[in-house]
Amino acid sequence: MSVEQHLSRVVGTVRPLDPLRVATIDALGLVLTAPVRSAVDLPGFDNSAMDGYAVVAADLAGATPDAPVALPVLGDIPAGDTERHTLTAGSCWRIMTGAPVPEGADAVVQVELTDAGVQRVQVRAEVAVGTAVRRAGEDVRKGDLVLDAGVRLLPHHIAACVAAGAADVEVRPAPRVAVITTGDELVPVGAPLRHGQIHDSNGPMLAAAVRACGAVVASLVHVGDRDDESLADVVRRVAGDADAIVTSGGISAGAYEPVKEAFASGDAVRFDSVAMQPGKPQGFGLVGDGVPLFALPGNPVSSLVSFETFVVPALRCMAGRDQARVSWRASVTRGWRSPAGRVQLARVLLTRSAGGWQVEPSGAQGSHILGGLAAANAIAVIAADVDVVREGDEVDVHLLPGEEIPS
Amino acid sequence: MSVEQHLSRVVGTVRPLDPLRVATIDALGLVLTAPVRSAVDLPGFDNSAMDGYAVVAADLAGATPDAPVALPVLGDIPAGDTERHTLTAGSCWRIMTGAPVPEGADAVVQVELTDAGVQRVQVRAEVAVGTAVRRAGEDVRKGDLVLDAGVRLLPHHIAACVAAGAADVEVRPAPRVAVITTGDELVPVGAPLRHGQIHDSNGPMLAAAVRACGAVVASLVHVGDRDDESLADVVRRVAGDADAIVTSGGISAGAYEPVKEAFASGDAVRFDSVAMQPGKPQGFGLVGDGVPLFALPGNPVSSLVSFETFVVPALRCMAGRDQARVSWRASVTRGWRSPAGRVQLARVLLTRSAGGWQVEPSGAQGSHILGGLAAANAIAVIAADVDVVREGDEVDVHLLPGEEIPS
Repeated sequence: MSVEQHLSRVVGTVRPLDPLRVATIDALGLVLTAPVRSAVDLPGFDNSAMDGYAVVAADLAGATPDAPVALPVLGDIPAGDTERHTLTAGSCWRIMTGAPVPEGADAVVQVELTDAGVQRVQVRAEVAVGTAVRRAGEDVRKGDLVLDAGVRLLPHHIAACVAAGAADVEVRPAPRVAVITTGDELVPVGAPLRHGQIHDSNGPMLAAAVRACGAVVASLVHVGDRDDESLADVVRRVAGDADAIVTSGGISAGAYEPVKEAFASGDAVRFDSVAMQPGKPQGFGLVGDGVPLFALPGNPVSSLVSFETFVVPALRCMAGRDQARVSWRASVTRGWRSPAGRVQLARVLLTRSAGGWQVEPSGAQGSHILGGLAAANAIAVIAADVDVVREGDEVDVHLLPGEEIPS
Repeated sequence: MSVEQHLSRVVGTVRPLDPLRVATIDALGLVLTAPVRSAVDLPGFDNSAMDGYAVVAADLAGATPDAPVALPVLGDIPAGDTERHTLTAGSCWRIMTGAPVPEGADAVVQVELTDAGVQRVQVRAEVAVGTAVRRAGEDVRKGDLVLDAGVRLLPHHIAACVAAGAADVEVRPAPRVAVITTGDELVPVGAPLRHGQIHDSNGPMLAAAVRACGAVVASLVHVGDRDDESLADVVRRVAGDADAIVTSGGISAGAYEPVKEAFASGDAVRFDSVAMQPGKPQGFGLVGDGVPLFALPGNPVSSLVSFETFVVPALRCMAGRDQARVSWRASVTRGWRSPAGRVQLARVLLTRSAGGWQVEPSGAQGSHILGGLAAANAIAVIAADVDVVREGDEVDVHLLPGEEIPS
């Protein structure tokens, strides 16, 4: 099975999560499922764009620095003043930015063009009608569309929702993901290692990868072969609180493959050999009440690359986001070998220079090699029919979860 | 004062936060302040790279599909087997991926080259010494540098730390930021609006912006002019639990400027006029026990652009990250006007096509205009000496907080 075929099966199976109403302030990064229309005009009332004086523009006809016009000041209108004031021609109000323009005023003259008087002000310039007045509804009218369904809410969108009076919004929630690591050789970091044992790095890594793509870790469990609760029971238990389950290990050709064995009967989860390196064995299917289960290989590098290749697009789909992974064309500065007949997902270091984007392999490419993975910031996707990547070749790369674009 | 001057003052004043030891699993996105060296060899012991049989390679000399070599199987070595087994020449152990290779074995023959026998196995091929054996320490040696200080910990780094036995790591913590909005006209979203009042959109927006750049919201408060606790008292109170304070509003030329007034005496906080649009008035200084306070203007657009321009680089510096904002050259598809003598931070829509990156203005550019901000995904930085941006011009852009690169 090709990478594309497996990915198609995954994204063809998972569904966007049911919408939920959440407080707008808690909606950062979530995708709207319903348009947001404004409950108010924006601005909600004619207001001043400047600190200055609300006037009748005609009263200032002919005002110059040499011949200022003097006006009595009826009082102050600070921002937040909820009284409705009225201006009579031949006078003015001192007014602050954002404060409501009094009835009868048709312009604001900025304080810098005056002597800043408090009871009586000298104005040194004419103003046109409408100067420094923001009209009610000039930005957005009540009922107008502020944001459409499908927008992922970022700080500036949250500001727009709140300004429009939307205290809560309908969004797809962040997927909750249960992470289960398997393998009797795994012990938690911090515990002493006996001969044959290694630290469980997949658990913390996959939990971090879940968080890095905006999802939530619903649970993080290790299941050993001799644990009281069987893997199938653990999966059943965590499925109740999870939108997806990710397991690592136990799916290859060996004699002790607990994940494969747990789902051997029944066709809920299918195990395939995918033409990729690393990450050949892959399991995927629906368990419990239709919860997608991703059975990833146990080697850390395979596990992360598989997560990035299949789980990230699925989680994006569940969150209502565009599945498309952003990819780059980059020029190879140091070549490497790639297995014929399989897509290689090579760990590379992506850098940027005046000439564009460059990649080089980040170290040894073995699926158990953490050194090379730790030095990588991206994955280069090398087609199955390529067996040597040469200096100067252009390759497609995408960033590892959480990585920033190199500056 | 120019944008560069104000930014230099900001990043010249703030300091990276003191390091903290945190559990590795909780360190996602944080920057190491000390190198991580491996507490163990990786792999920790010679182990099998395949499911198969641990053998003495010489025993299989001459084995072919037509003339397989039969070997008695001494038993199974699953991954996680903590016993130390020994292989005697002329026999083999069935062994699983990751399991320790028994003393005396010098190769593993993969199960696919055998009849998969349990008590006696037929092997159909020769293997070279060392085949499918991962040697102890071949990836990383005990004491080797795994990650250097300065690395921002992402999922693959967390895996490397855990594998290397680092249960906790020394990092710069995520900055804790207190957000204070000011202005008597502001009421929380959800509450009814009286004449002259608007919803406090800056609070939720700035809180989201803090989160979007990996920092933590320590508190979120609105202070009105008639509140019992004065702004200065609120600042003093929140400074105790915050690494930075961001205020919005109350810093222009009007008669009611609570933030400016609170810090008018003393030179802890300086208020400047910065040659930028939007965002001209800016306050910055150290309060309390040396906590940086950013006094941003109150218009939502000015507030967000100021946050992006001055606060984000400061928070990155505090978190030990590279301050450099990633910027792009993009081609203008529809021009706009820019104020002479001031840097314009224009809200634009950045898109990507086969030909490269394009930008167009995202709507009206007034500093109170949320419609145009909501439609933007990036900010274009237009130099002070430019007054017209024309179709076809190349401009520098950077993404708004939380925005993804367009795919």
